[in-house]
Amino acid sequence: MSALSRRRVLAGGAAAGAGGLLLTGCTGDGRTRGTGASAALSPAEALRDAPVGGDTVPFHGAHQAGVSTEPQAFASFLALDLDPEAGTEEIRRLLWVLTDDAVRLTQGRGALADTEPELAVSPARLTVTFGFGPEFVRRAAGETAVPAWLKPLPEFGIDRLEERWSGGDLLLQVGCDDQVTLAHAARVLLKNSRAWTSLRWRQSGFRRSRGAEKPGTTMRNLFGQVDGTVNPRPDDEDFASTVWAEDGWMAGGTSLVLRRIRMDLDEWDRVDRSARDSALGRRQSDGAPLTGEDEFDPPDFQAEGSNGFPVIPEFSHVARANGGDARPTMLRRSYNYEEDSGDDAGLLFAAYQRDPDTGFVPVQRRLDELDILNQWTTPVGSAVFAIPPGCEEGGFVGETLF
Amino acid sequence: MSALSRRRVLAGGAAAGAGGLLLTGCTGDGRTRGTGASAALSPAEALRDAPVGGDTVPFHGAHQAGVSTEPQAFASFLALDLDPEAGTEEIRRLLWVLTDDAVRLTQGRGALADTEPELAVSPARLTVTFGFGPEFVRRAAGETAVPAWLKPLPEFGIDRLEERWSGGDLLLQVGCDDQVTLAHAARVLLKNSRAWTSLRWRQSGFRRSRGAEKPGTTMRNLFGQVDGTVNPRPDDEDFASTVWAEDGWMAGGTSLVLRRIRMDLDEWDRVDRSARDSALGRRQSDGAPLTGEDEFDPPDFQAEGSNGFPVIPEFSHVARANGGDARPTMLRRSYNYEEDSGDDAGLLFAAYQRDPDTGFVPVQRRLDELDILNQWTTPVGSAVFAIPPGCEEGGFVGETLF
Repeated sequence: MSALSRRRVLAGGAAAGAGGLLLTGCTGDGRTRGTGASAALSPAEALRDAPVGGDTVPFHGAHQAGVSTEPQAFASFLALDLDPEAGTEEIRRLLWVLTDDAVRLTQGRGALADTEPELAVSPARLTVTFGFGPEFVRRAAGETAVPAWLKPLPEFGIDRLEERWSGGDLLLQVGCDDQVTLAHAARVLLKNSRAWTSLRWRQSGFRRSRGAEKPGTTMRNLFGQVDGTVNPRPDDEDFASTVWAEDGWMAGGTSLVLRRIRMDLDEWDRVDRSARDSALGRRQSDGAPLTGEDEFDPPDFQAEGSNGFPVIPEFSHVARANGGDARPTMLRRSYNYEEDSGDDAGLLFAAYQRDPDTGFVPVQRRLDELDILNQWTTPVGSAVFAIPPGCEEGGFVGETLF
Repeated sequence: MSALSRRRVLAGGAAAGAGGLLLTGCTGDGRTRGTGASAALSPAEALRDAPVGGDTVPFHGAHQAGVSTEPQAFASFLALDLDPEAGTEEIRRLLWVLTDDAVRLTQGRGALADTEPELAVSPARLTVTFGFGPEFVRRAAGETAVPAWLKPLPEFGIDRLEERWSGGDLLLQVGCDDQVTLAHAARVLLKNSRAWTSLRWRQSGFRRSRGAEKPGTTMRNLFGQVDGTVNPRPDDEDFASTVWAEDGWMAGGTSLVLRRIRMDLDEWDRVDRSARDSALGRRQSDGAPLTGEDEFDPPDFQAEGSNGFPVIPEFSHVARANGGDARPTMLRRSYNYEEDSGDDAGLLFAAYQRDPDTGFVPVQRRLDELDILNQWTTPVGSAVFAIPPGCEEGGFVGETLF
């Protein structure tokens, strides 16, 4: 997408904000004074001795980045609501503009008309992943384009959902190993979405920093548990069939189920180590199943202790999550969260799968019926998004919708 | 401090919570089941290929860590209020317990009775710095021990202070290059403070991640400005006389002025590059003064442009902050902050100096009178703490008070 055409789109956006929708003229070379001034900063110079900052993830490809990407240290999930007057043409234009922003930002350049391009020079594996709620797809391409699974999840008995953490028309998932870069990227995208959207919620989370542990280590949540052992790896045979959709405009895309799961850390503190291990079915110390020695040993649900009861209790999280088939049905890529207020901490549970009705939902139904961990965890937010496929250079994310 | 004596103190705390103050017996070897279980995790194993995680900052020494320490990527400032019944003996015990926690946590070990010691294995330059408000010093050691400067700052015309970000009896400043380690450490300290305190506020901020930029690069704030160029370096001749106190129980300590400065990013976006540079007196692109070529060139306030006006405007931040003497009067160590709500972002301005009345206050008076940047910035929180000296092994932070 050329700078020229991009300026036309932006200018059109401004005009739309003032009530019209006509494309107005562009302003010359398409670069602002602010962006030009950053030429003084040579990226090579800025990134010397900065191995974390200089790492980039390619934006273009068959799939969007940020799904099979090794999770970055930080993620912000932003849900936007479409303004009532935004129709097919506005949505197309919005996606075009935001794709252009994402292309530039993820490669360590300021966006066009970026007022702080200096904050973009350290990409640090920045990814921007777009997701669509049902209303977004409906307005862009009509009811028939909405996948059957793209709707709120069925109600679960354990849910205590709050509107302020649920739903949304357009998702911007921004992941990065650096919080300054992330903050800047999220702000640019938000600014350039304003003509047709408003922010519904933003949820931010963290994992270990890059270099803080051995690469590929399974994350721990704030309960101290190893969380996400059974997870497909991008080079697994089943990865594509588990994660990527195959049909229609979604081919090469996936779905995201995002759940805000509040964790009662104070009550969890009262639980002793052996009760914790039983509740999970895995040892907190190293994540190994109670019947194994290593984190990746398959749990043996048949094994009985000397008392005749299963070593891995039937009420344990691991036993309930398992549906009789050891193969993972979704890709988990969660983040810890903690609010400064001190009364809200937990997990931004993020699961990607071809179809939530065969991925997340059956697992959650079993956990909803019985999972001793439910005593200390409460889902307070829930959202489902269609993650469209990636695009090639010159294209834009979501183009298959049109 | 032995595990045994530590258990006595903790047990005493529990008793105090129930209304008594007697030291009760200890519970054996002083290690809990939970802590023992973590022996399965070998730190060497956990830290292979994890250069960021394995880095530690010594806890003991003449000065507390976290002041002259090269700033970590993240910091949380927690202010606690003392319970009405906490007197000298309880304060002494509290400091003893928290020092023991900090010693262990900063060296990558779980605290005693830590329920999630697995989260402590990656210290990532964790530091815990203690600070005392006036009431804390008064209750510990009487009115005469309170330094003259340990009080709320004078009122400034630009202030719009909110109680929820101001004041406090005990400060815990927790800095780390990893957010999981930081979250765990803050939680342990908070839990072990509960017998005699309650949380007043917590404020968390970020800089660039370790490895995201060249070490020693001056930070940028969310306006995109290079922020903190004129700052004493630990090997500067003047560093000690600027930062470290010399007298009485504070010898080897310092003071912290923490200001929550909200920044109006939306309004700042409307300011073009040349007006931004004039407002600051430095170029946003590289931080050089408008009269120089390099960030560290001294600003020339006498230089005039072709129009006869000073090149660095008299209303600019740099001109106003400068008091006619190029030497810094405080050590700045600030952090960016951004709330997920989307309406509160800015700077946790942190300045350390021997005496705020000769460090922060005169500079702030000049900025309060006139500083064009005030148009886009609003101080909404303010606190002053005495940062006592460090301690040697076997001692505890704050011991010089008793």
